[in-house]
Amino acid sequence: MGDATVALVERALEGDRRSIAKVISLVERGGERARVAIQMLHPRTGNAWSIGITGAPGSGKSTLTDQLVGKLRAGGTEVGVLAVDPSSPFSGGAILGDRVRMQSHTSDPGVFIRSMATHGHLGGLSLATPQAMRVLDAVGKAWIVIETVGVGQVEVEIAGHADTTVVVVNPGWGDSVQAAKAGLLEIADVFVVNKADRPGVAETQSDLAGMLELSSRRTWQPPIVRTVATTGEGVDELFEAIVAHRAHLEATGDADARRRARLREELRGLVAAEMLDRASTVSSGPRFETIVDEVARRVRDPYSAAEELLLP
Amino acid sequence: MGDATVALVERALEGDRRSIAKVISLVERGGERARVAIQMLHPRTGNAWSIGITGAPGSGKSTLTDQLVGKLRAGGTEVGVLAVDPSSPFSGGAILGDRVRMQSHTSDPGVFIRSMATHGHLGGLSLATPQAMRVLDAVGKAWIVIETVGVGQVEVEIAGHADTTVVVVNPGWGDSVQAAKAGLLEIADVFVVNKADRPGVAETQSDLAGMLELSSRRTWQPPIVRTVATTGEGVDELFEAIVAHRAHLEATGDADARRRARLREELRGLVAAEMLDRASTVSSGPRFETIVDEVARRVRDPYSAAEELLLP
Repeated sequence: MGDATVALVERALEGDRRSIAKVISLVERGGERARVAIQMLHPRTGNAWSIGITGAPGSGKSTLTDQLVGKLRAGGTEVGVLAVDPSSPFSGGAILGDRVRMQSHTSDPGVFIRSMATHGHLGGLSLATPQAMRVLDAVGKAWIVIETVGVGQVEVEIAGHADTTVVVVNPGWGDSVQAAKAGLLEIADVFVVNKADRPGVAETQSDLAGMLELSSRRTWQPPIVRTVATTGEGVDELFEAIVAHRAHLEATGDADARRRARLREELRGLVAAEMLDRASTVSSGPRFETIVDEVARRVRDPYSAAEELLLP
Repeated sequence: MGDATVALVERALEGDRRSIAKVISLVERGGERARVAIQMLHPRTGNAWSIGITGAPGSGKSTLTDQLVGKLRAGGTEVGVLAVDPSSPFSGGAILGDRVRMQSHTSDPGVFIRSMATHGHLGGLSLATPQAMRVLDAVGKAWIVIETVGVGQVEVEIAGHADTTVVVVNPGWGDSVQAAKAGLLEIADVFVVNKADRPGVAETQSDLAGMLELSSRRTWQPPIVRTVATTGEGVDELFEAIVAHRAHLEATGDADARRRARLREELRGLVAAEMLDRASTVSSGPRFETIVDEVARRVRDPYSAAEELLLP
């Protein structure tokens, strides 16, 4: 099994798309094969820049992602896309609703698109996403775009774990208030007011600017970019804003600090998942039943029973 | 600290109310003192019969509990009451909203009333409630009534872990449908249609009876009791239904089987909480930072880092 995994990862590193897809499935699932794969992939990572794109459903994130991928590809480098939907049970090959829009890139061998959904994976998408990013990074994608479907807690967390987080809103007061409520103000490195051909765009922009001034910002002041994703208007400016944010993080050393913080969270998640796995292993079987019996007969108390179960 | 805990538990076992309250706080918090206390208390448990009372807010649970406590006290035995509110941050001495109704019993030394709310306790109320029940059992309460404030997941789970679970609904079709939706049909040993002086009581009762027939029931068919808690009407019948259920469980041996199942769940919870505690301990400090650094420098991969952190 170890050898087959090694061979599969080698084919992925040579750029074979089917193998890349299989390796992502494998690291999503976790377990021994994931260990082998990550061990091979991890030393080859650290070159990709990740962009998280989040915003309410219907804000035009998918169309914007599609346009942005076109722009990133124009630079000649390869792009990986992770479409993350915690509300969907389908992962892997399944095409999420809006993914059809990305068809403009499905025939481009320089673009790898992957949908991710809630899985059996212990720790869920929060653990699986960094592993999938690691695969795309190692196989040579220079840009990784992580598009989340909604603005739920998991999605905001995942999008916020990118190097540059883009928050998409639409014209209309309500939307900017919602953004603040959902904690998007805190994680946004770049704001996009998409559908900027609609009325109310100036008000939304000034609302956002006002809220950003009130919030305790660090050295980087998030720019607010107006786009019309359906026509491509403003996509160049969005790309420039992302590049400027990247240059800022790299100049200040914040890029490394942020990646370090993400790594810390990831390791905490892996450790907790492993511990819960062990807890679940000792919480069944004949030894467990014997100890339950002792507690029931009151020759042992529950705390010492838990301790006994946790002895190696 | 161990000696002080032993002395405190001894005073609680002698019936000192303030000490009982302190011991409950102590086992709610968990940790070393809880271990010492539970070790002393556990061998003295197994005599109390616990009654869980759940239902939507406003269904009259508190008034019914108040009446039921009066009925239980009439038998001459002592009663412990746990009022569980997962939505409240206040625990211990705090009187929950409806608790004022229980004032009729606060001067009765044979009734011990305790409110429990979400705490810092790892594992929350699901872990803390069995410990508090254990204290009340050990200090000699023959009946323990656990009243939950709403019908949230935690509350249903807690009420369902009593020896006899009473589900309170009101006249009106919607209420019985809600009961089915919330999973109350599965956990109810006795149904109460409270506010039975209102219109629609016969329909609600036949709706419930119909739904109970459809659901896959075991040997016990949950009776449906009509009450008017404000006047005390039907409380004798409720008490008789509880006594009948107890007699049934004791005759069939199901009482032991159910307690064994609860114990199993409790042990699983204790083991998981302890594992998460250990995970959190190894996920900070200089050793953790060294390992994060190694992963960041790519001399170590995240999985082997997690393994290394989990070595003793």
